Amino acid sequence: MSSSSAAPAAKPPMREALVAAAFQLFLERGYEQTTVDDIVALAGVGRRSFFRYFPSKEDVVFPDHERCLADMTAFLAASAAEHEPVRRVCDAARLVLGMYAENPTFSVQRYRLTKQVPGLRAYELSVVWRYERALAEYLRGRFAGRPDGTLRADVIAAAVVAAHNNALRSWLRSDGLDDAGAAVDHALGYVQTVFGQTAGPAPAAPAPIGPVPAGDTEDVVVLVSRRDAPLWRVVQELETALGRA
Amino acid sequence: MSSSSAAPAAKPPMREALVAAAFQLFLERGYEQTTVDDIVALAGVGRRSFFRYFPSKEDVVFPDHERCLADMTAFLAASAAEHEPVRRVCDAARLVLGMYAENPTFSVQRYRLTKQVPGLRAYELSVVWRYERALAEYLRGRFAGRPDGTLRADVIAAAVVAAHNNALRSWLRSDGLDDAGAAVDHALGYVQTVFGQTAGPAPAAPAPIGPVPAGDTEDVVVLVSRRDAPLWRVVQELETALGRA
Repeated sequence: MSSSSAAPAAKPPMREALVAAAFQLFLERGYEQTTVDDIVALAGVGRRSFFRYFPSKEDVVFPDHERCLADMTAFLAASAAEHEPVRRVCDAARLVLGMYAENPTFSVQRYRLTKQVPGLRAYELSVVWRYERALAEYLRGRFAGRPDGTLRADVIAAAVVAAHNNALRSWLRSDGLDDAGAAVDHALGYVQTVFGQTAGPAPAAPAPIGPVPAGDTEDVVVLVSRRDAPLWRVVQELETALGRA
Repeated sequence: MSSSSAAPAAKPPMREALVAAAFQLFLERGYEQTTVDDIVALAGVGRRSFFRYFPSKEDVVFPDHERCLADMTAFLAASAAEHEPVRRVCDAARLVLGMYAENPTFSVQRYRLTKQVPGLRAYELSVVWRYERALAEYLRGRFAGRPDGTLRADVIAAAVVAAHNNALRSWLRSDGLDDAGAAVDHALGYVQTVFGQTAGPAPAAPAPIGPVPAGDTEDVVVLVSRRDAPLWRVVQELETALGRA
């Protein structure tokens, strides 16, 4: 997880110390009741050190989202033409899961904190929006020039984020005990099934008569026929479809 | 549009005057440079009157979202079992479009303002989230007890919101000159096509043999058959499906 091509930069210990001090205080006395001064006092550093790492108190709650957004952008930028686009954005979403799953205890603590503090909820929505835009921008590029390219890009990006977050929330509500990877794979699998290989619906107007593929089930034949087709023509098609002609 | 069953309540003139004064000042000197005191001075009312209608300066930028959220909630609560759920949430989303289309000039001004002010963008994301949750809650109820009910509810709600907003943004970028209704109908039509009648992919394991409905196209017959079914049984089913037995 969080497998960008670049080697991960070693985290400065001061940054980690600030995050640890902040969460200790948030849990002890509450988010609103904790000031940046309290955090730096506990971490044993100065105010300027805090703001070198975090633009605001909200940012210390989500210390890894900027790195994860950068990983996701790099991952999508490194895509090749042969990458199936819906699968690619699903894989990009798995980077976010990886960040949460790296440290379950911290992720669960933050989940509880975010639910209690409206300001953090708003901050989280803005981060989710940035992930969604990164996915949508990539898909817009891949679908450029196709009918409804931007519409499909936006809808698929939103569906991927919603599926990912549905699984992520289930995992967080399990206190990080469930299998996060399996839950997200299942949820993203649903999106891939719905939007398929070409990320579009099946053609609205089926051929007048003829077999159509039935997905992965090789021993099932689906035959689409006009109601007014001559029966002999339908049987002929059917024999061909069943491999008995 | 915005056709809740209740008759629209007459808006108090003071509320309208505050919105008009606020937007005049936001456009003249900018959002950040305008205070609530400036707004009430121009509208000729006291500060307490402002806060009777709007909890904060941000709320005056989006004066109709609370009403629209209430309309949407009432619309969804009034749903019956025979309402196809995906169509129903698409119709609920059209209430939001109706609110924007009621006053194109105001909507376009607000769109430009929101793009410039990060705080307003964050506020808007939280409103969009509330719409999405209202749609998802309704769908969760409709899909209760079905496999992946909450997953499908969350994904479809997100897809509906993304499609609606894709069309809405196109319309706002046209300065409100395009046909908003047609754009949103087209975008929501895509979502309905993708998520279909039952809001899920086709069943993985079809019945061994037998006709299945082909959506709205009455003159098309779809026959699903096991590949190893005896031909005479398939033809018999086919005759029945074609109404010729």
